[in-house]
Amino acid sequence: MPCDSSFSIPSASPTRYGSLHDECGLFGIWQHPEAIALTTLGLHAVQHRGQEGAGIVGLKGRAFYVHRAPGLVGDVLSAERNTLVDKGITSAIGHVRYSTAGGKDVQNLQPFVGETRYGPLAVAHNGNLTNSAQLRKMFLDKGRTFQSDSDTEVILHAIALSNADTLADAIRDALVKIRGAYSLLVMSRDEVFAIRDPHGMRPLVLGEMDDNLLAGRLVAASETCALDIIGARYLRDIKPGEMVRISHDGLQTMTLGPSKPERFCIFEYIYFMHPHSVFGGRTVAAVREQIGAMLCRESAISADAVVPVPDSGVHAAVGYAQAAQIPFKQSIVRSHYVGRTFIEPADKIRHLGVKLKLSVNRAAVKDKRIILVDDSIVRGTTMPKIVDIVRRFGAREVHVRISSPPFMNPCFYGIDTPSRDDLVAANHDVETIRKKIGADSLAFISIDGLYRALGAPGRDVAGRSYCDACFTGEYPISLAGEENTAKAS
Amino acid sequence: MPCDSSFSIPSASPTRYGSLHDECGLFGIWQHPEAIALTTLGLHAVQHRGQEGAGIVGLKGRAFYVHRAPGLVGDVLSAERNTLVDKGITSAIGHVRYSTAGGKDVQNLQPFVGETRYGPLAVAHNGNLTNSAQLRKMFLDKGRTFQSDSDTEVILHAIALSNADTLADAIRDALVKIRGAYSLLVMSRDEVFAIRDPHGMRPLVLGEMDDNLLAGRLVAASETCALDIIGARYLRDIKPGEMVRISHDGLQTMTLGPSKPERFCIFEYIYFMHPHSVFGGRTVAAVREQIGAMLCRESAISADAVVPVPDSGVHAAVGYAQAAQIPFKQSIVRSHYVGRTFIEPADKIRHLGVKLKLSVNRAAVKDKRIILVDDSIVRGTTMPKIVDIVRRFGAREVHVRISSPPFMNPCFYGIDTPSRDDLVAANHDVETIRKKIGADSLAFISIDGLYRALGAPGRDVAGRSYCDACFTGEYPISLAGEENTAKAS
Amino acid sequence: MPCDSSFSIPSASPTRYGSLHDECGLFGIWQHPEAIALTTLGLHAVQHRGQEGAGIVGLKGRAFYVHRAPGLVGDVLSAERNTLVDKGITSAIGHVRYSTAGGKDVQNLQPFVGETRYGPLAVAHNGNLTNSAQLRKMFLDKGRTFQSDSDTEVILHAIALSNADTLADAIRDALVKIRGAYSLLVMSRDEVFAIRDPHGMRPLVLGEMDDNLLAGRLVAASETCALDIIGARYLRDIKPGEMVRISHDGLQTMTLGPSKPERFCIFEYIYFMHPHSVFGGRTVAAVREQIGAMLCRESAISADAVVPVPDSGVHAAVGYAQAAQIPFKQSIVRSHYVGRTFIEPADKIRHLGVKLKLSVNRAAVKDKRIILVDDSIVRGTTMPKIVDIVRRFGAREVHVRISSPPFMNPCFYGIDTPSRDDLVAANHDVETIRKKIGADSLAFISIDGLYRALGAPGRDVAGRSYCDACFTGEYPISLAGEENTAKAS
Amino acid sequence: MPCDSSFSIPSASPTRYGSLHDECGLFGIWQHPEAIALTTLGLHAVQHRGQEGAGIVGLKGRAFYVHRAPGLVGDVLSAERNTLVDKGITSAIGHVRYSTAGGKDVQNLQPFVGETRYGPLAVAHNGNLTNSAQLRKMFLDKGRTFQSDSDTEVILHAIALSNADTLADAIRDALVKIRGAYSLLVMSRDEVFAIRDPHGMRPLVLGEMDDNLLAGRLVAASETCALDIIGARYLRDIKPGEMVRISHDGLQTMTLGPSKPERFCIFEYIYFMHPHSVFGGRTVAAVREQIGAMLCRESAISADAVVPVPDSGVHAAVGYAQAAQIPFKQSIVRSHYVGRTFIEPADKIRHLGVKLKLSVNRAAVKDKRIILVDDSIVRGTTMPKIVDIVRRFGAREVHVRISSPPFMNPCFYGIDTPSRDDLVAANHDVETIRKKIGADSLAFISIDGLYRALGAPGRDVAGRSYCDACFTGEYPISLAGEENTAKAS
Repeated sequence: MPCDSSFSIPSASPTRYGSLHDECGLFGIWQHPEAIALTTLGLHAVQHRGQEGAGIVGLKGRAFYVHRAPGLVGDVLSAERNTLVDKGITSAIGHVRYSTAGGKDVQNLQPFVGETRYGPLAVAHNGNLTNSAQLRKMFLDKGRTFQSDSDTEVILHAIALSNADTLADAIRDALVKIRGAYSLLVMSRDEVFAIRDPHGMRPLVLGEMDDNLLAGRLVAASETCALDIIGARYLRDIKPGEMVRISHDGLQTMTLGPSKPERFCIFEYIYFMHPHSVFGGRTVAAVREQIGAMLCRESAISADAVVPVPDSGVHAAVGYAQAAQIPFKQSIVRSHYVGRTFIEPADKIRHLGVKLKLSVNRAAVKDKRIILVDDSIVRGTTMPKIVDIVRRFGAREVHVRISSPPFMNPCFYGIDTPSRDDLVAANHDVETIRKKIGADSLAFISIDGLYRALGAPGRDVAGRSYCDACFTGEYPISLAGEENTAKAS
Repeated sequence: MPCDSSFSIPSASPTRYGSLHDECGLFGIWQHPEAIALTTLGLHAVQHRGQEGAGIVGLKGRAFYVHRAPGLVGDVLSAERNTLVDKGITSAIGHVRYSTAGGKDVQNLQPFVGETRYGPLAVAHNGNLTNSAQLRKMFLDKGRTFQSDSDTEVILHAIALSNADTLADAIRDALVKIRGAYSLLVMSRDEVFAIRDPHGMRPLVLGEMDDNLLAGRLVAASETCALDIIGARYLRDIKPGEMVRISHDGLQTMTLGPSKPERFCIFEYIYFMHPHSVFGGRTVAAVREQIGAMLCRESAISADAVVPVPDSGVHAAVGYAQAAQIPFKQSIVRSHYVGRTFIEPADKIRHLGVKLKLSVNRAAVKDKRIILVDDSIVRGTTMPKIVDIVRRFGAREVHVRISSPPFMNPCFYGIDTPSRDDLVAANHDVETIRKKIGADSLAFISIDGLYRALGAPGRDVAGRSYCDACFTGEYPISLAGEENTAKAS
Repeated sequence: MPCDSSFSIPSASPTRYGSLHDECGLFGIWQHPEAIALTTLGLHAVQHRGQEGAGIVGLKGRAFYVHRAPGLVGDVLSAERNTLVDKGITSAIGHVRYSTAGGKDVQNLQPFVGETRYGPLAVAHNGNLTNSAQLRKMFLDKGRTFQSDSDTEVILHAIALSNADTLADAIRDALVKIRGAYSLLVMSRDEVFAIRDPHGMRPLVLGEMDDNLLAGRLVAASETCALDIIGARYLRDIKPGEMVRISHDGLQTMTLGPSKPERFCIFEYIYFMHPHSVFGGRTVAAVREQIGAMLCRESAISADAVVPVPDSGVHAAVGYAQAAQIPFKQSIVRSHYVGRTFIEPADKIRHLGVKLKLSVNRAAVKDKRIILVDDSIVRGTTMPKIVDIVRRFGAREVHVRISSPPFMNPCFYGIDTPSRDDLVAANHDVETIRKKIGADSLAFISIDGLYRALGAPGRDVAGRSYCDACFTGEYPISLAGEENTAKAS
Repeated sequence: MPCDSSFSIPSASPTRYGSLHDECGLFGIWQHPEAIALTTLGLHAVQHRGQEGAGIVGLKGRAFYVHRAPGLVGDVLSAERNTLVDKGITSAIGHVRYSTAGGKDVQNLQPFVGETRYGPLAVAHNGNLTNSAQLRKMFLDKGRTFQSDSDTEVILHAIALSNADTLADAIRDALVKIRGAYSLLVMSRDEVFAIRDPHGMRPLVLGEMDDNLLAGRLVAASETCALDIIGARYLRDIKPGEMVRISHDGLQTMTLGPSKPERFCIFEYIYFMHPHSVFGGRTVAAVREQIGAMLCRESAISADAVVPVPDSGVHAAVGYAQAAQIPFKQSIVRSHYVGRTFIEPADKIRHLGVKLKLSVNRAAVKDKRIILVDDSIVRGTTMPKIVDIVRRFGAREVHVRISSPPFMNPCFYGIDTPSRDDLVAANHDVETIRKKIGADSLAFISIDGLYRALGAPGRDVAGRSYCDACFTGEYPISLAGEENTAKAS
């Protein structure tokens, strides 16, 4: 994902500064004396899923403790600032978030906490509801009051409203009313629930501690990289439509309702998940290498080096280079000091913004034919700068290869995308885009090629299990005029 | 009010560091282009009413903007940090708060904001409800969810629940259900309401701008000192049980229900209000001087100087000194640098904590008979240190005079007081307290003397208009087992 | 001293924000296990002498440790930031400073430290040299290099240059070359020297610890308020031209050279010293009361109240009120929250700056005849605002009384004063100044009256022991064209 | 360079956290209106050479302005904090530094500034003198005073002492007395000097601006990556023993004295310089690839993947992999969030420190034979952890290959190295080290191999132009008992 953000905006996250913003990351643990330390580390490991705020709700005895703030895990939950440290907390759920503009108010930080007839509940949510506006209006008309504009508060109200005897049943009652993509953690005084929506659009995995302290204690997280960092063993993915209850009774599994076709977000594999995470039986980095190799087979070209756009294009470029038998060269390096707000010299000194972020190995590109590999082109505003800088360092030819099909449709299921007007591929054909970015050639992987790289015979076959609406426009969950209200949470 | 807080706890407010914590301060303004600047200054002027958090909710067109944070007005709302600056906001309400332990979570900051069927509302509250626990339980049982433990959220739920056609009626519906002490500001997209409870326990005044910009624009504030700072003219006090609506239609006044006997908090005059504020037709400083004079008449003693305990005893000491014809001497001065966390020398260097906070003029106390005047003795832990330090600087005699009756009962109407077990006067007679504090003599003003200083013939007369429960135990609003849940908001 | 600084400039010190800036404050202690804690507290007590920077140099064994930074003692030397804590340091000297513009670079922070043939030395200086430019040029021509523009570095070079066998002799050699006002602390690995210049222009006192830990350990400080705070007993003032050596051998006293007439800065009594400090056998607060009484005798007028300009006029006002038999009223109070940078409303809301800093008791001034007492008028820019605000609150008459003679000449001995062009009394007669400030009457104490208040028969008598150049223009130490280079250190 | 620093120590620099600490980085520019912006960016580009402090001295007209502080360029010189912004400064020199323990006092920050008979001078130094202690003692004995313990102050004193007519001659006089490694920038009011010591041990290059603003203006920097970032054209290296003067007269070149054999630090190529920098006609990344290829030729072994230790082993690993025809895999990734101070779980959860810093792709190492490539083994404390973590993720075999010979001798020429006792290769043979790190095999490149990778026939030939004392113990500049005083500056 190339760098679009302007120079003076501090980039909270070194790795992610592109046009597509991540959604959110979750972590939860039940009954472990190191609950706060482990949750902090788990959130740190899924930091790439959301960099604008972090929070943990801890449970000690019957009491909830809350610590949430805008910022990175390393700031918000540092040893000095984390108010939950040394409180004897033994269970916790945590959340890192990306927020849409305007929603950065502290009221929108998660996990969301509210008292209900079921006692206090903490809710952490990754995804996006598609009928939250309707539900919200209905609740307001009934005399309720909302203190945030987040989907998560809608979920909490829906749970509180239920007349069910148990919290598990209340959650099921609530989720029946809710449409959209969600992976959820819900903590009460007695349990943690880990839930994926019936289509399974967002990831959520189960693990157990493998330490010398309390091996076997259960953990839930958005990705397996959060299990690795704390030394937990990966058990399995939560299934679409599954609700797992973790309590003193151990692990119980329930289903939300009638099963629906699986529609896991294919872009999680292309860009969002950590390369070392495992989901659906596949290691993300390996998937990306296969996509790169398939991309090469579809659009091979003669060149001197395959160069990834850092850091998003690395694994696809490795796969491309091996398939093409062309040397892989990391000739463009991100500065480790991006995001600083220096005074900039006058405009006449051109392209400084990109130069500050990217360091090019002049000897490695001068007079060379370069294949640049990246994961996607969204707005199309950064790639021209990268092509230009590579040319300015002397490249003879610059060919651009993209490891996803053209990105033509906004996401309403938890990824913050520009509107369709700002999606360059929704408004221009490939040749026009090529000219805009100034490349000698440009190719995207085909949608069938993408599916083949994932092990399927192609897209148009029975048993398809991914959401690819951003490429195809086929939205698996009805939107009901939701286009204007889509937001990540 | 003497200094009880331990040395290493930074005192947010230089003036107030005693055992009794203030409640809250309010400010609101309707339709003025400088709404945010004026609200900030107004809150700064009532900073003595609450130093733990500050917040403003602004209205621009139909949109609400919120800025709230823990800390002093000067930090939270400084020009650099105040996110409401330069937004074109034209109406606003603001709040400074003192919070009880455990309630410092940002969720409890005010003004409270929630969306309701009447649109978004902002609520700022000074006081304490006595039936909020019951209301809260009732609402929870009906499937509602609470995100804070503040009374103010209960008020908001009660308003949202109403079926009334207008917000004014909805507020009236809500307040019928509510018992306790409150001064309230409520802002909607169309108006600001300024409300005092039927007993009128907490202050709230009306003013109008007197500037060259937009003279006549209406302002509401806890005290007149907030009007002075912005150059507003003081119009009048809001009456007990009155609800004033400020809107494009100007000022409308309504009543909450059947009138009840006025019971304004007498301790507001003794300690809480700013000395320069005017309420009930009296300037606070003058009231305190009268109390000091009456105290002298009741318990005169021969001495060389009348010395106030800084800063709470100053005005009573002035009145005492004039009545006694004994020189008034400010021989004890507070350090302007209190609240710093230095390393302290070893315990063997005694009483350093108090020495750091108080600087004594040795020449003015050595071999002298000193009358120390303070406003109250609550826990009785600080006065012994002050008496001791005055003796260590050479005083021959130390007589303590207190400008309130013995403080024997906790407050349930908005002042954060220790429990009865920790109120020294609830558990000891005057002679025992004298010994504990090490004074040569000790006297409190009598309850009748206090009323006489306020212009009444004495307490036990018809038409009494104050709440004096802290001295007498006669609580004007029934408590219904509320003792354990009392808290300020 | 009235408030001249503009609203948006954070005032580091609540008490001192006038036209005359303090010089510096010193503290030193030899061989006490709490050396760092005690030095921090001692500096905190003399914080009023300099608020722009603070520093301590500690000695442990043979090693020097340095901690200096811009800011207040409470920030720079707070328990969290003070890097000297827990190092086992047993001797230390410290410094608080006021710096002239441009000299705020960290290089100018004190104590100054340099290695010399006598080992490392730390030097802390209060005063101003009058021949430092000549000495500096001479040293540069000899191939030396200077790393700051402070007088203190010149002193260090002069010491290092000496060929004397002992450091004591080297310091004497150096000070022979130096002209000007200075109180100095010099620490080597073996001793601390406490020195006053031959005229004794700046204060410096000796004390000894009176604690249960190590009673009798010697302490030097600018003022006795620093002894009070740490529980040290005041022994005596350092004499003009005296050099006291504190070491393992106890206390030794030496003289700098032939004695000169004492010329202690008379303005130290009027404004700079802490009211509770004792110097020259007098308590500062009592001196100020005597000056106020004398001022009353010279310029009595009928009025309803004597009101001090806070905080600088308090003691003189007390003395004036008692002599005049007019009630003393603190009807103007400084805000405890000055120095905050709020957004200000439009200019059309007048005089807000002063209103923010000063709160006036309307009832106490309305329709009253007020005598305002302050210590001095320097630029004459603040007093008009105070007179105006008092009138706007309804005063019938405003009479201004100043407890010093007209301030007509800049100081070259350690006080940062405006140039003569900016001294209102150097350019206007009393009647003109009265009109400028808008008072009904204005009077300054006479120079003879000032001396009488200090116990002398008048100024023009043998044995005068004060520098009063700021009032009389008689500079006791020749200036040699120094006017342009005068600066505080 | 593997990670040795403990978990709780915030790593200022994401890239460099190993046992060998960099020296310093320099940047200077003469007469360009964007001098401050360009110097800031240039320092940002050489941030890898020193992360503990940064500073700039600017010249405007005849006045020097100084801004220096501990911390990274992005903090110290950010737009908000950089006090030199908008001052109209047109020439500047800057410095980033690594400091040895104890020398972090602000007094040691560079550029060093002192006034001399030649006016004010600013000096920025990269290297280490070997006779500074002797010079310092000699200067002290002559009555001089030192305010820091840095070599740079010694250089400044030596310049100030000269009687030469011009500053150029004074610098030459001074450098005749000085032994050791240095690249220097010296700025006066009239010029900037760029100087390398006679052996040319540290890098320094010349460039000229290539912008639309003022093309042709001269720039000096430690490395060419600083030229790239500001769009300057690389002209040439400064030669050993060359002194370049940049002034209104353009560029003048002089020599320091009789020429000596070139001894450029060979470790600059192995580790210190930025991979994209060009020095001595070679791109650093390409040199490292050649070293990796040569290492492969010397110690080939059968394996499934070549994996670099991030980030120091990347280029050598690429070269190794290509020579070995084994896939290059970046299966170990550094966390982008290192340096945070979280609470750590109990010790029983093992090796967390390394896990937090390194993320391993489980699928890519499980059951595989891995060749780990790194640039050096210094203390030997980190490599065991990396080998262990790779094994814990399931590697079948772990072979370690090091792209430098065994590091056996401390550096006295500007690199901060552990003492010989802590250099694992100085005390153990390769087989012992292999056991300590737990590898299946271990190999270092030979010293001859290293020279051959650099294009020489081998080490033992005439014309050798590198210092390789850290590997061979042959120190090109005599040390005179300097071992104990070696430090970076």
